[in-house]
Amino acid sequence: MKIGILGGGQLGRMFIQNALKYDDEIYTLDPSENASCANISHFSKGDFNDYQTVLDFGKDKDVVSIEIEHVNVEALFQLEKEGIKVIPSAEIIKIIQQKILQKEFYLQNEIPSPDFQIIQNKSELNFPFPFVQKLNTGGYDGKGVQIIKSENDLEKLWNEPSVIESLVDIDKELSVILAINENGESQTFPVTEMVADPELNLLDFNICPTELSENIESQISEIVEKFKVAAKSAGLFAIELFLDKKGKIWVNETAPRLHNSGHQTQEGNSNSQFEQMYRILKNLPLADTDSFGFSGMLNLIGAENYSGEVKYEGLDEVLKLEKTYVHLYGKNDTKPGRKMGHINVLANSREELLEKLIHIKSVVKVIS
Amino acid sequence: MKIGILGGGQLGRMFIQNALKYDDEIYTLDPSENASCANISHFSKGDFNDYQTVLDFGKDKDVVSIEIEHVNVEALFQLEKEGIKVIPSAEIIKIIQQKILQKEFYLQNEIPSPDFQIIQNKSELNFPFPFVQKLNTGGYDGKGVQIIKSENDLEKLWNEPSVIESLVDIDKELSVILAINENGESQTFPVTEMVADPELNLLDFNICPTELSENIESQISEIVEKFKVAAKSAGLFAIELFLDKKGKIWVNETAPRLHNSGHQTQEGNSNSQFEQMYRILKNLPLADTDSFGFSGMLNLIGAENYSGEVKYEGLDEVLKLEKTYVHLYGKNDTKPGRKMGHINVLANSREELLEKLIHIKSVVKVIS
Repeated sequence: MKIGILGGGQLGRMFIQNALKYDDEIYTLDPSENASCANISHFSKGDFNDYQTVLDFGKDKDVVSIEIEHVNVEALFQLEKEGIKVIPSAEIIKIIQQKILQKEFYLQNEIPSPDFQIIQNKSELNFPFPFVQKLNTGGYDGKGVQIIKSENDLEKLWNEPSVIESLVDIDKELSVILAINENGESQTFPVTEMVADPELNLLDFNICPTELSENIESQISEIVEKFKVAAKSAGLFAIELFLDKKGKIWVNETAPRLHNSGHQTQEGNSNSQFEQMYRILKNLPLADTDSFGFSGMLNLIGAENYSGEVKYEGLDEVLKLEKTYVHLYGKNDTKPGRKMGHINVLANSREELLEKLIHIKSVVKVIS
Repeated sequence: MKIGILGGGQLGRMFIQNALKYDDEIYTLDPSENASCANISHFSKGDFNDYQTVLDFGKDKDVVSIEIEHVNVEALFQLEKEGIKVIPSAEIIKIIQQKILQKEFYLQNEIPSPDFQIIQNKSELNFPFPFVQKLNTGGYDGKGVQIIKSENDLEKLWNEPSVIESLVDIDKELSVILAINENGESQTFPVTEMVADPELNLLDFNICPTELSENIESQISEIVEKFKVAAKSAGLFAIELFLDKKGKIWVNETAPRLHNSGHQTQEGNSNSQFEQMYRILKNLPLADTDSFGFSGMLNLIGAENYSGEVKYEGLDEVLKLEKTYVHLYGKNDTKPGRKMGHINVLANSREELLEKLIHIKSVVKVIS
């Protein structure tokens, strides 16, 4: 089967790595000839934001999917019209691409997400401080999002179509990955917690599973169920959640694709998000996703002040550790903040897991 | 780092699949342009038995290795002379390539292997019936090996340089995979048992770990220790063993490479034989190899009477099973007896494992 993926980054690379268990032909489209997928798939260099490029790329594939949501969605609608399978659907990608449509989608489908106002420009603002401004389009990896605390910050306000959203008093950031195949079969991975302790500078840990009360679990199940009905699409979705200090769950946003918060499923679960995505694209039975004890993930991020050919300091030390798995993304050059890889860890308890992750964080550095 | 592998079959493919976790460039050499590795590595079409081809392939690599042992070993000796790292060493590949040298190696190093006589031709035969004849060279996957039961069979005897070996009264066929890195660090995977019950036609199961008495475990440890000292080479070695009905362990033969008897390590152990091989080639610390409960493997072999474009009957059924992992080798065409893939299974007990494997065997068929 010919599987076409828009985007050739690390998510595509890990998808391909897993899919090498099977016999399909995998095609990727990316503007960079040094993309992580370039040498391990049938690679086309091109702009996945260009209508004609995406149309040409997709028209001879059995299924077209994405590993980044910022793609030309009109071309995906056209491919669907021409009978090409597009997963997730052009419609749900379009909704998620635009923060305004995404918020309206939550509202219409009674999926709890923070209160909001939609503005086309600054002059329309009518919302109590503090709030978050999210640009309608172009946001990615934290870009296009800012917090406005008080009137003093107002000069920072972007004069563009945006969602203005109330700040959640966050207790925990959580994520649940939902898989839906074309038969309507669905499956979730155990909920992941993003550990963020600014004092310890632990900004890049995922921990799975996380201990949640029955009430919270059931709020999450309800959200997943509503999302599934509303999405009307096969696909793998990462639903990012806030648990507030009163014990209520809010949807922050959703990614219609493989997600950083699911990387520890590579060794932490009986099947990974990458296997699940493969099965969705081929409309196969979904895989079992049991956790093997506790698993966690640490991103390998390009350190400040280093640009150029990447070196990983301390990696040999990490490779000596038991049940510790290094994943690099095949990127030659580092720059500050660039995602270069991640490390997964298995442990028998949350405490042991955190200890291991903190140790690894102290040992490894991504430099040039 | 530039890693060159002689051979582009399924062992190379699974090596590459695992190595995609890292950033190296992997090169493969194989005579078939449809080789399993062709589209997922820097691929050279060429004969790995040809001196000049191997020399040319290897000379700009940081390390050269094999995924099949029938390669031009003179070229490997030359590469070593030129300062290219060859793992395993040309010397140990040469010894293992030739059954006569291999038997002499066991004898010299006091590694127990069945009694034998070396013959250059038929006329030299002087050995009690029944016996096994193994051609000195050219044997592979059971070819070049035959049993001579009595004088009546003598007409079948090959008139070529051979090892004539006494038959072991086999209780169990076992395999132990030994990893040695350049620092001399070594590690073994838990012993695998090959289940062969002709009545149930279960010829293709591996089961790991297997229950062995302390005495047998210690015989195996001693063999591993002697092999390690004698091999004088880094590498991954699959030592195939017979346990006889009196409780004695004999070495049948050794493969100086990744091995079918280690496939269940992909999901059954905290790290697989493919990860271990990668670490050996880069002289990294060896990985931990703990078992996750019981694991087993079933080969997917081309069924009799089917040749041509492969179809896998019953695979959807198998994909519904928990902790069951399908691995296909990217081969377009099946033929009777061709290894097309395998299925790994995890279970909580030997009984559950066997039950699952037997069920899967009854469901899947490799046809065209």
